[in-house]
Amino acid sequence: MQFDSIRAIQWQQDRLLLLDQRKLPREVTYLECCSAGQVANAIHDMVVRGAPAIGITAAYGVVLAARQHVTDSPDNWQEELELDLDLLAKSRPTAVNLFWALARMRQVIQANPDDPVNASLNAATTIHQEDIAANRAMGKLGAGLIEAKAGVLTHCNTGSLATGGFGTALGVIRQAWSEQRLDAVYADETRPWLQGARLTAWELIQDKIPVDLIVEGAAAALMRSNKVQWVIVGSDRIAANGDVANKIGTYSLAVNARHHGVKFMVVAPSTTVDMQCPDGAAIPIETREASEVLDLAGQPLAAAGAGAWNPVFDVTPAELIDAIVTERGVVLQPTRAKMQAMMADAS
Amino acid sequence: MQFDSIRAIQWQQDRLLLLDQRKLPREVTYLECCSAGQVANAIHDMVVRGAPAIGITAAYGVVLAARQHVTDSPDNWQEELELDLDLLAKSRPTAVNLFWALARMRQVIQANPDDPVNASLNAATTIHQEDIAANRAMGKLGAGLIEAKAGVLTHCNTGSLATGGFGTALGVIRQAWSEQRLDAVYADETRPWLQGARLTAWELIQDKIPVDLIVEGAAAALMRSNKVQWVIVGSDRIAANGDVANKIGTYSLAVNARHHGVKFMVVAPSTTVDMQCPDGAAIPIETREASEVLDLAGQPLAAAGAGAWNPVFDVTPAELIDAIVTERGVVLQPTRAKMQAMMADAS
Repeated sequence: MQFDSIRAIQWQQDRLLLLDQRKLPREVTYLECCSAGQVANAIHDMVVRGAPAIGITAAYGVVLAARQHVTDSPDNWQEELELDLDLLAKSRPTAVNLFWALARMRQVIQANPDDPVNASLNAATTIHQEDIAANRAMGKLGAGLIEAKAGVLTHCNTGSLATGGFGTALGVIRQAWSEQRLDAVYADETRPWLQGARLTAWELIQDKIPVDLIVEGAAAALMRSNKVQWVIVGSDRIAANGDVANKIGTYSLAVNARHHGVKFMVVAPSTTVDMQCPDGAAIPIETREASEVLDLAGQPLAAAGAGAWNPVFDVTPAELIDAIVTERGVVLQPTRAKMQAMMADAS
Repeated sequence: MQFDSIRAIQWQQDRLLLLDQRKLPREVTYLECCSAGQVANAIHDMVVRGAPAIGITAAYGVVLAARQHVTDSPDNWQEELELDLDLLAKSRPTAVNLFWALARMRQVIQANPDDPVNASLNAATTIHQEDIAANRAMGKLGAGLIEAKAGVLTHCNTGSLATGGFGTALGVIRQAWSEQRLDAVYADETRPWLQGARLTAWELIQDKIPVDLIVEGAAAALMRSNKVQWVIVGSDRIAANGDVANKIGTYSLAVNARHHGVKFMVVAPSTTVDMQCPDGAAIPIETREASEVLDLAGQPLAAAGAGAWNPVFDVTPAELIDAIVTERGVVLQPTRAKMQAMMADAS
């Protein structure tokens, strides 16, 4: 399977292995999780990140919870399981894939009270496989929008590390690269966690796709110099009107893309679309600790005494977006009606 | 002298002391320079940075050159001095203050062939003092544009560390704070050198002005949430039509400011205005080593094998600027004609 060699989430018999993304690219180590609590901590602490990956990880977390409570509390395992579902739901607030995966897992378990362990493992594995298949489909749809010899800019990490495998925005880039449509791939380093510098660059290098990093401040100059024709990003939640929550810095790219006539593509599985959420203003935006901006690897970057404002997502309004790509199809110039049609359009 | 306690450039009898800004905020150490070559290296290596500070430092570098060559080569000191002027001119390409200061120093020395050492020291000291006076004047002019209870966002470092003292954009912020016009001061951390996190935050904390840092990607979300009414930045060169070269990331802020109805102010002494330069396209933009983006303090940040595009300045077109403030006055909505009038308007 060319251009897709990495699996960050691995189920092994009775435990979940998570590639510890905080330590990449320096160390490739896996964290073992044997309980839902460990999984919730791993999500909160960003061992694993990326909306689709968070959903898949939480699904496996429910399998661990089912295994544990069916054995330890055969009489009231359902109640114990609900507590773990709550714990997992509280691990991160913005990515809707988390809540979607937990709802699906709860449904499966309720439908299979006699064999919740096998039923939940089957469901989690299916969620994982469906995500990879969705990414493959989106890769082809998104690559089809890119004219030959384009330069592209991406933000954060949306690859195999952020998903079940292959990636969303980075899946489109992988696919477009394999179709020889791309002239150059640029990646924002993506402060404060440096997912672009640490993770996206690492993935692309594994697949021998050359990549140039830029500081985020350089994106406008990059666009002005005609080096890129598309900005391609993922999403943590897409509202019913097509507003997109994604990694902080995405909205600034969208404003600059529109100013420079650069096209703006959002790539996310339909599990990222939240039709219950009317618009971007209703999406809860996580703010994390100031220390993520002020320190790096435990060492202070900033002058002592400074504060920091650290929202980790922002909202890009639908009117700045040229295309939303899901596995169900491409929505050009998204509107509430077009999003509704796309989401209704499936089995 | 409240709100202005730092002097990064200090002449002491026969040598120049430069506060080593690469080591701030962790260490406050001064580098001693005894020759123009040492000064040129200090500018190139960013011991000292900021357009006005580079000009002042180069002027003192000429004093060191004059001292050395008048003593060592009494017969052909002028030729030796020219070599050192060349060396200093090649230390950084973008800040025009460097070339302005060198031209003025050459003129003074040519006019005083019998006592070049004292004449050059007087000239350098005057350049230094004039810069501080200009900053004080700009502080008042710029602060006058800000309505009470404003939030402001600044970029890079434009304070005492970047100038002879007090600062340009940060001088306006110091002054506006002392006039109780400001509700909140935000500073971009300013990758890749982190001048905002390391230097601007350090200066503001010394003066007890509270500051919140943001990653550059958060600027658009900050503007969208109405937390700031002004973006205030310095400049490395202003073209005759009002186009402004400044630290990479400035242009992105200007595009976002216009999109959000946030005002955009550029503060720089008239020595930063280059009337020989017709527009922004004619300003030479320095590109520095990829390692500045890929590494931090000698440690790799990015995945091995990644490249980086590292232009360290960008150009903001005049039409995105609401006010250019020099010590000669305020130019609102700059145009070529208004810039010409402002520059002609002086003795």
